[in-house]
Amino acid sequence: MPGEAITIVIMGATGDLARRKLIPALFELRCNGGCPLEMNLVGFSRTPLTHEGFRQLVWESVREFGPLALRTDEWEDFAKHLHYVTGDLDSLEDLELLTELLNEFERGFEGVANRLYYLSISPALYEVTLRNMGASGMTDEGNGWRRVVIEKPFGSDLATAQALNRTVHSLFREEQVYRIDHYLGKETVQNLMVFRFGNILFEPLWNSHYVDNVQITVAEELSVGDRAGYYDASGVVRDMVQNHLLQILTIIAMEPPSGVDADSLRDRKVDVLKAIRNWSPQEAALNAVAGQYDGYLGEPDVPPGSRTPTYAAMRLFVETWRWSGVPFYLRSGKSMAGKISEVVVQFRRPPSVIAGPDTEIPGNPNLLAMCLQPDEGAHLRFEVKVPGQGLTMRSEHMEFQYEWAFGQQAIPDAYERLLQDAINGDPSLFIRSDHIEEAWRVVDPLLEAWASPNAPRPERYVPGTWGPQAANRLLAEHGHHWITVCGQRYAPSP
Amino acid sequence: MPGEAITIVIMGATGDLARRKLIPALFELRCNGGCPLEMNLVGFSRTPLTHEGFRQLVWESVREFGPLALRTDEWEDFAKHLHYVTGDLDSLEDLELLTELLNEFERGFEGVANRLYYLSISPALYEVTLRNMGASGMTDEGNGWRRVVIEKPFGSDLATAQALNRTVHSLFREEQVYRIDHYLGKETVQNLMVFRFGNILFEPLWNSHYVDNVQITVAEELSVGDRAGYYDASGVVRDMVQNHLLQILTIIAMEPPSGVDADSLRDRKVDVLKAIRNWSPQEAALNAVAGQYDGYLGEPDVPPGSRTPTYAAMRLFVETWRWSGVPFYLRSGKSMAGKISEVVVQFRRPPSVIAGPDTEIPGNPNLLAMCLQPDEGAHLRFEVKVPGQGLTMRSEHMEFQYEWAFGQQAIPDAYERLLQDAINGDPSLFIRSDHIEEAWRVVDPLLEAWASPNAPRPERYVPGTWGPQAANRLLAEHGHHWITVCGQRYAPSP
Repeated sequence: MPGEAITIVIMGATGDLARRKLIPALFELRCNGGCPLEMNLVGFSRTPLTHEGFRQLVWESVREFGPLALRTDEWEDFAKHLHYVTGDLDSLEDLELLTELLNEFERGFEGVANRLYYLSISPALYEVTLRNMGASGMTDEGNGWRRVVIEKPFGSDLATAQALNRTVHSLFREEQVYRIDHYLGKETVQNLMVFRFGNILFEPLWNSHYVDNVQITVAEELSVGDRAGYYDASGVVRDMVQNHLLQILTIIAMEPPSGVDADSLRDRKVDVLKAIRNWSPQEAALNAVAGQYDGYLGEPDVPPGSRTPTYAAMRLFVETWRWSGVPFYLRSGKSMAGKISEVVVQFRRPPSVIAGPDTEIPGNPNLLAMCLQPDEGAHLRFEVKVPGQGLTMRSEHMEFQYEWAFGQQAIPDAYERLLQDAINGDPSLFIRSDHIEEAWRVVDPLLEAWASPNAPRPERYVPGTWGPQAANRLLAEHGHHWITVCGQRYAPSP
Repeated sequence: MPGEAITIVIMGATGDLARRKLIPALFELRCNGGCPLEMNLVGFSRTPLTHEGFRQLVWESVREFGPLALRTDEWEDFAKHLHYVTGDLDSLEDLELLTELLNEFERGFEGVANRLYYLSISPALYEVTLRNMGASGMTDEGNGWRRVVIEKPFGSDLATAQALNRTVHSLFREEQVYRIDHYLGKETVQNLMVFRFGNILFEPLWNSHYVDNVQITVAEELSVGDRAGYYDASGVVRDMVQNHLLQILTIIAMEPPSGVDADSLRDRKVDVLKAIRNWSPQEAALNAVAGQYDGYLGEPDVPPGSRTPTYAAMRLFVETWRWSGVPFYLRSGKSMAGKISEVVVQFRRPPSVIAGPDTEIPGNPNLLAMCLQPDEGAHLRFEVKVPGQGLTMRSEHMEFQYEWAFGQQAIPDAYERLLQDAINGDPSLFIRSDHIEEAWRVVDPLLEAWASPNAPRPERYVPGTWGPQAANRLLAEHGHHWITVCGQRYAPSP
């Protein structure tokens, strides 16, 4: 009986992402039975390499970034299916060479021969690459499906994303397109959805009656380092907010889907973005704070006087019946005080039944923190009675950590999960074209406001802090303050 | 400036409760400044003792059952205020002797001289004691307040409780009467209220829309031992259910009070009892299971063929808008598998959005357990995503333990708390006359049904188990099962 073969083509196979993430993940998948036995992995890149040279590169990548105990048996089998084509993405001729090689593999195979193309290349080359893929026949689905995974950033604003979507859709149907945001492959991000909809505890509380504000933080400890060549042209909003932070926001704020199929989920997520009003550039400036860490201008490759924000904080309102009036605070930055990704839901204060009208300090609000990293898990802050006379209350904590339940090794890599989904044809955790455009629509006024020649310079902040003071004032306007929960180890001491 | 003096009179001062609990608690209070410096403690009992003999008894009691480090300085001062009167409670003459002694103390004092009477005596003597107190002038409030603390059991059914209340009210106004249930003095029982009304997280979930059933367990590991003389005449319903379990039920099921003053709280608690329908004896038999552990009939002082239940399980419905249709399961027993007091709230299952319609096993319901002992605290069971492909869920746990937050020594004794409240004049944690009568009304049909000559013998159960099988069937009728959470140590391993 004829079976199923798959060829995975990595465009940009010698790059950082391919070596650190994609190749080790594919090796893992192959070892775990996550893809057909008939799997070829074809690298394509400008770097001149022989097939053998590519095998060497893959070997080193798997050894350095792959699982701790490298399985030699499986490696030898894997190595037989590694191939390489040297070429330029903007050369139709080179892509025709690649196509010829792919066709050759498949001619010898009697069953269905599928292909997954992974664009792990400079976004500047997306358009030309896609067009050359089309022209060289790589999109033909004669003997199997063709899917394309496209890395972020997908566009640099709404107009460029729309243009890129037009090109993509001229060559692929939407269901063939897997726009990736590796945050969606993280266990803890997926667990946000399970947490909300697999438990009855949270949904009744999940609205403006009980939630005071929501804070989403994705903070990096590292500075720009030697990546300013890329970074300075994009800045924190394009690098983090438009994708990762808005993804988390949509999962937190979405209405319950009727099922977990890709479109049920993605419809509800896009609904959230649609409910965020268009800012005027003036409103954008009032509701957001740009920051740049001291020393950024001295980093290699940063142009003199660059105004690129390395930090952003903003206040968004999701104008649905559920969320109207609840501020969603988003912040992200480089050179911050910790490497932390978390969602903190601050609830409203209860009426002062217990504290009593003559109590000076009103009760603390409850908090629910979902820690994406570190100490992946969930954290609940609530009030208990302090032992002794009266009804004095104090905040205490309950915590769940993934590591306690599943051990550290059990959390699979995001890329492995997403590659598996792309191979299986499940686009749930990939970004649909309408989502990506709505996300750009949300941040475009901010990009415009901050790019204006009249815009003030970004606020300065000291590296290793939580960002500029202005971001604290942004929250203080509504009586709020930033809350950091994850990584603080409230767990009982042994 | 004239100050305030207090005389605490313990009727039954040589008994077990006085020696183990009341005397050590009063010493603690005196040391902590919990009562006026001018405090006299007067013991009254049939046992012939001199003042000095009583001081010796108090010394031994404080040393054996009091705080670990006995404070000798404070002891010497305390000892000067200890006095004793030998007498019979049913002798008016003896009570007049006691009154004379009390008056003598107070004649030398210029300020207000208050008195707290503590009836730590056989319930059979309540009526005569109270009448003799009245006749000897002990209830006169000429130079200070008079309050009376009455131990449980207060009556042995509705009729006897009503009669006793009539006697009490002929001598004291209701606000002078402190009917004690030491469960209400436990930190963890008080925290039930803080948990419900000091946090916003739980109240929105606290109703029949989200709660599937509530289970209240107060289990003892010990057998009746040598207490059958008292126990066999009462049984588990009078000993535990009518007081402790129904108290916990009212705190769990009450509507939010408008404040924490005694009557706001107690009004809302009585409302719960009023909403429990009158069972016919037939209904009582259908909704409850009596048990008696194997070997009970061989315990010392148990009459041959005794049908006294040492275990009871029952299903109650609180017919309020909030709770209609939600079973409240109560169980209590001796010789059980553990010494556990807990409340488990089992929530409804969420819709199968995540699990999907083709999942065989529906998601586990969430649980909230409030552990009164051991491991005093709270416990939440919820669903998380199991790492890996798909959206498989698994139950995990978050826990809070008082000991982690406050250390073991920090939890004060229930009697100390309650004596302090009685001295301060705060009856919040004491039982009002209407509450005690309503609680008897709830259990009376059960007592009647089980006392009927046609009633079957109690179900047998093996000591060291969770009770008879019939109690499991009682829950299975509604698709439920007993859940034990506390004491299971879900805490992360170090």
